[in-house]
Amino acid sequence: MPHGKVLVAQGGGPTAVINQSMAGVVLEARKFRNVELVYGAYHGVSGIVNEDFLDLTQETSHNIEMVASTPSSALGSTRDKPDLRYCQEIFKVLKAHDIGYFFYIGGNDSSDTVRIVSEEARRAGYPLRCIHIPKTIDNDLVGNDHTPGFPSAARFVAQAFMGANLDNASLPGVYLAVVMGRHAGFLTAASALGKKFPDDGPHLIYIPERTFNVEKFIADVKATYDRHGRCVIAASEGIHDEKGTPIITQLSSQVERDAHGNVQLSGTGALADLLCDKIKSQLGIKRVRGDTFGYLQRSFMGCVSDVDQREAREVGEKAVQFAMWGNRDGSVAIKRTGFYSVDYHLLPLEAVAGKTRVMEDEFISADGTDITDAFRLYLRPLLGSGMPDAYRLRLNKVDKILNPSK
Amino acid sequence: MPHGKVLVAQGGGPTAVINQSMAGVVLEARKFRNVELVYGAYHGVSGIVNEDFLDLTQETSHNIEMVASTPSSALGSTRDKPDLRYCQEIFKVLKAHDIGYFFYIGGNDSSDTVRIVSEEARRAGYPLRCIHIPKTIDNDLVGNDHTPGFPSAARFVAQAFMGANLDNASLPGVYLAVVMGRHAGFLTAASALGKKFPDDGPHLIYIPERTFNVEKFIADVKATYDRHGRCVIAASEGIHDEKGTPIITQLSSQVERDAHGNVQLSGTGALADLLCDKIKSQLGIKRVRGDTFGYLQRSFMGCVSDVDQREAREVGEKAVQFAMWGNRDGSVAIKRTGFYSVDYHLLPLEAVAGKTRVMEDEFISADGTDITDAFRLYLRPLLGSGMPDAYRLRLNKVDKILNPSK
Repeated sequence: MPHGKVLVAQGGGPTAVINQSMAGVVLEARKFRNVELVYGAYHGVSGIVNEDFLDLTQETSHNIEMVASTPSSALGSTRDKPDLRYCQEIFKVLKAHDIGYFFYIGGNDSSDTVRIVSEEARRAGYPLRCIHIPKTIDNDLVGNDHTPGFPSAARFVAQAFMGANLDNASLPGVYLAVVMGRHAGFLTAASALGKKFPDDGPHLIYIPERTFNVEKFIADVKATYDRHGRCVIAASEGIHDEKGTPIITQLSSQVERDAHGNVQLSGTGALADLLCDKIKSQLGIKRVRGDTFGYLQRSFMGCVSDVDQREAREVGEKAVQFAMWGNRDGSVAIKRTGFYSVDYHLLPLEAVAGKTRVMEDEFISADGTDITDAFRLYLRPLLGSGMPDAYRLRLNKVDKILNPSK
Repeated sequence: MPHGKVLVAQGGGPTAVINQSMAGVVLEARKFRNVELVYGAYHGVSGIVNEDFLDLTQETSHNIEMVASTPSSALGSTRDKPDLRYCQEIFKVLKAHDIGYFFYIGGNDSSDTVRIVSEEARRAGYPLRCIHIPKTIDNDLVGNDHTPGFPSAARFVAQAFMGANLDNASLPGVYLAVVMGRHAGFLTAASALGKKFPDDGPHLIYIPERTFNVEKFIADVKATYDRHGRCVIAASEGIHDEKGTPIITQLSSQVERDAHGNVQLSGTGALADLLCDKIKSQLGIKRVRGDTFGYLQRSFMGCVSDVDQREAREVGEKAVQFAMWGNRDGSVAIKRTGFYSVDYHLLPLEAVAGKTRVMEDEFISADGTDITDAFRLYLRPLLGSGMPDAYRLRLNKVDKILNPSK
């Protein structure tokens, strides 16, 4: 077992349960005699290079438990994606502070950072155990049945569409909502999980795994509207044309790009407005409304899956156990073992780092605008207990008196 | 007591608890011997003129209870705002179907419909009891301490901003969200109810009760950002300039108008995008994100105030009792009697119909961008039990080693 301090950090977009993983690391690490202090990096890797560390050993267990059930990254996060030079800076600081264990909670960019730091340490002959702890609402980490954070975000999306469907049934028209997910459609597909009655929406689901064609889209909407007198649509922010160009760039040439060169998809209602305008102008339907779920879907306070909470806690705990009792660095992964049970494995960092999982074909319907029962079976247990359920009145119609023929 | 059937209808925008009021009417009405049948109009007043009635007497009590806890208008709604001629049509149908009691659950437009129908019946000497049952997420009915539907929507907005504040603290920048409310700022002001720590957002709140000035707005954002390194903003969709022109119309000349001549404010992300663009271009802040809560705030499945549920049920029950044992038509109103307790009164229809309540001055801070403790005291009990609570780590900083001076 390497000696030294433990450092935990959080990277990328926050989730509803990312603090459960942090709590899992902190509380489990304190049980090991070779661990003297547990530090948290303030705002991810940028906190490391700036030596902005919090001493979590001076935090009460009680408050750590309360923080664990609070959404968003309590240690702060960062969008920095370190290159080799940045990782060497990280390594320098870890060494100066006598860090023996480095735990980074994040997505595939974060796992790549862990991989580079791990290699730097090995090259320098410095005893450092590096473990990546999975987190992402997009569910796009390879080698995982699913990733912590996704189930709670999926639950939000499912509940949101349950309500949107009821609203749309009450005041008929077209309702479209844009859901997060640049490359993977899992979160958008979760919109279907609240469907109960045969004519419930979302009636159409558009995901990045399938090419988006505007003409086909308009025809789909028309067919649904003709059939049901209304239409509820879930569209991923990452939908793109056959060349891979995001549909949102068709709207504006002035798109914002992040440090990774990615087009800004969230934090704007532009895509929903663009698609609604198309429906209005091409189909002449009057009541067309578009929402963009935006940051609510990853940060809304009070919508969380208890299954997600437990698993996020466990990946943190298991990370410490793998680090202490194992002999290699890696990425903790969730493996489904039953209906519904899971176990945890440590994957090689290079098996996860920088790779992107998308929705498996078996989860997508043949026409590409719906999910399959296989996806329903996959996702339902993850949403946890206490899911709300929608009821409707039975249509016991009364005979007309003034206009009996109508 | 007039003899005849009972008719209940729902109008305007759905809420999380509007079906509680419907259930209150249906279940209470069945207890009275002079009531043979209880009908529901399918899609509000348009359902009445089309004789689209559901026989709710053929519905199980069990299912009515399940529907009561389901958000959105189970009977369907309408945006029709009847004029005198339309109301005469309504009256004709009510007469043909031997309706003795008419209950309409809705906002101030709906109360005006009830007023006209009531007058028509009196003029024709037809024994019809007409009762308006309050409902609106905007909380803009006069004569009411608050209106059913508002507390649950307020809870959604408060929880959304609790999460948004945590997300913004984790990845600092400017976050702005647009909240529903054309004339009344109650719902936007509810964004402050989740604030706990002194630097929690929303830091700035813009409501229709105060004139919106773009230069002042930009200066406010700059001051907040300079102070906290981040800024969370709640803006009402109804903000307007000193002439009363909605800020959203500054964006586009092609705005959609409804049957009432109102500009479409919801179902588009345009206002949030406009304000974010202003901040980006004038302050040069890179990370600026805008969300529009849209239909989620009135229909999200799984975010409801239990206080709101109980009161929505009771206004429905009381409406029936007032109709059966009283001798006049009217609008049921909630009166606060203690901290926290309420009672119900029947107001004259003309005291409520077509009038709009806005936020009282005592609820708005002197600078116009925050709420007062009076508002906090007013709103907190309405949000109900089980409100989530946010926790944060204590900042026990570790001494720097490589750059001790920084």
